[in-house]
Amino acid sequence: MDYEMITINLTKDGGQQFSEEFQALNPMKQVPALKIDGITIGQSLAIIEYLEETRPTPRLLPQDPKKRAHVRMISHLLASGIQPLQNLSVLKQVGQENQLTWAQQAISSGFNALEQILQSTAGKYCVGDEVSMADLCLAPQVANADRFKVDLTPYPTISRINKSLLALEAFQVSHPCRQPDTPPELRA
Amino acid sequence: MDYEMITINLTKDGGQQFSEEFQALNPMKQVPALKIDGITIGQSLAIIEYLEETRPTPRLLPQDPKKRAHVRMISHLLASGIQPLQNLSVLKQVGQENQLTWAQQAISSGFNALEQILQSTAGKYCVGDEVSMADLCLAPQVANADRFKVDLTPYPTISRINKSLLALEAFQVSHPCRQPDTPPELRA
Repeated sequence: MDYEMITINLTKDGGQQFSEEFQALNPMKQVPALKIDGITIGQSLAIIEYLEETRPTPRLLPQDPKKRAHVRMISHLLASGIQPLQNLSVLKQVGQENQLTWAQQAISSGFNALEQILQSTAGKYCVGDEVSMADLCLAPQVANADRFKVDLTPYPTISRINKSLLALEAFQVSHPCRQPDTPPELRA
Repeated sequence: MDYEMITINLTKDGGQQFSEEFQALNPMKQVPALKIDGITIGQSLAIIEYLEETRPTPRLLPQDPKKRAHVRMISHLLASGIQPLQNLSVLKQVGQENQLTWAQQAISSGFNALEQILQSTAGKYCVGDEVSMADLCLAPQVANADRFKVDLTPYPTISRINKSLLALEAFQVSHPCRQPDTPPELRA
């Protein structure tokens, strides 16, 4: 589908997500927000589910309800169980000197659980051999783990799946290190 | 539907969620976990979506995709944007003397956004006049707000919806203050 992307730089100008203009789109002052079909949707997983229901090609959820449950469980583990604990606003509250340890602890704790769950759900990707919403959540979280220098040795399944994902063009071009507003020191 | 509920007391015995038995059900060491149809599902919203897909009576998501997007946006705002920041394990990390302020800040910040979103989505309940997954997320979060002594005066819409919900038998019997293992000081 065609789209126009407007980048919201979370660190420039004191955080562009705090602008009046962006707050009108997403009162949570968080990215992303999607304007589509006359509505504006915040929250990444709500956005993905809407796209799935209205533009189901490619499919991001399997058809079998049990596999869908696995995809959603993993997606929510990442999006609720890890991401919010190591996002920018929380790390600011935690303070400069503690934030690396804090983020590492949040990610390791979630990855310990995820590695165990993947033993019974994963094929080539998080759930079976088809790319799903769970993989869309996994790749950026592994990128964040790298950024916070989390040792990935204890997570061979997570590492293997992430490598398979990064072999796909869609994941290469959308990687956090290749966004239009990625700061130079994080580019790759 | 028939079910058997097993309570996992988060503060008793050093936290029953850390038992080997429970970790086998939910490696995240968090409640809830649902054993159903031969699988085990963690993450509240993944559980609700599975029940919706396999046992859609009563419906917890509207049929219109835009309204479904609103329900999911609000549910995720509560489940990812507020709940994880004020749950037990995070508050332990924050430490006794800072945890009340921390929890109040997380809840107020999320409620500020939610109050604004509800202006365009709410009817009698969070999205229109039918109870949805969003309401299932709202009621326990308002209960937590009470527990952390958050002033609800700035949130008239949240307060009004919560009052409507607590008038329903399903919300009365499942309220956090009426769980089989609610500590005596939190019972009502």
